[in-house]
Amino acid sequence: MDQQLIQPFIEATLSVLNTMGQIECYPGKIVEKVGTKTYGCLTGAISMTDPKVTGTLTVSFDENTILQVVSNMFMEQIKEISPDVIDAVGEITNMICGAAKTTLSTMGYSFDMSTPFVITGKDIELKQLSKATTYSIPFTSEAGWFVIELCFVVPGTKPSIS
Amino acid sequence: MDQQLIQPFIEATLSVLNTMGQIECYPGKIVEKVGTKTYGCLTGAISMTDPKVTGTLTVSFDENTILQVVSNMFMEQIKEISPDVIDAVGEITNMICGAAKTTLSTMGYSFDMSTPFVITGKDIELKQLSKATTYSIPFTSEAGWFVIELCFVVPGTKPSIS
Repeated sequence: MDQQLIQPFIEATLSVLNTMGQIECYPGKIVEKVGTKTYGCLTGAISMTDPKVTGTLTVSFDENTILQVVSNMFMEQIKEISPDVIDAVGEITNMICGAAKTTLSTMGYSFDMSTPFVITGKDIELKQLSKATTYSIPFTSEAGWFVIELCFVVPGTKPSIS
Repeated sequence: MDQQLIQPFIEATLSVLNTMGQIECYPGKIVEKVGTKTYGCLTGAISMTDPKVTGTLTVSFDENTILQVVSNMFMEQIKEISPDVIDAVGEITNMICGAAKTTLSTMGYSFDMSTPFVITGKDIELKQLSKATTYSIPFTSEAGWFVIELCFVVPGTKPSIS
């Protein structure tokens, strides 16, 4: 099921970064996450719930990448992380999830999305309370790199203290 | 609406900390949050979605407090933050949300809960992509302090770049 769920998020990421950030991105290999740290300097996180499955999406940007994306979005050169850049990461996270949700609705899923939030800082410990696998998908672009992560949990699979 | 939604979370917090952590807690005044930083050394975060409203709950523990709570839960003295302590914060966050959800279901709400996650570190910037008010409720206890925070957003109130 995970693979079927992941693909719409990859396509949504390519579409949103192209439309909003005017950058071409290239997805790397899907890998199982080891550890619990965030990658980039800004990480958007959003949750989704469907009667059959709950999920979380995080989108973690390297500083150079998000500054270029936001410069393209705002049509002016943005040189440092500001509240506007933080909000843009939340907005991009929201839009990726929204676009994937639309595709997933044609596959019988009916996800409700939470309000995203954004965590500032590199190497932040961000641990899911679930033994479900988190999948990391790195992306490269002319602006630099970012990583999206997805974790899906089937309700009734009790989150447990390890 | 917010006040009506907040009270079940306060009662759930008192109940879960008393049952799980064997501590009596005392809620302080509900205040509107200023800024975006977390308070304690470990912060559990969970999202809820209902057709009428989406919400987020965070539970942020001072180090001494969570070590005492977890020592009570595990019936052995825990002296430092470990993966088990991190998982316990996620589990407590999950239980508080679950208990509040049960009360809220009698008030006509039908929340689906996400899988919680836990952020490690004090003063972490954790910004909601919403202009809705975040409410902070500090709690004191014989073990020390912790803070719960709640933010509710009515769908259709578009999260926006400030």
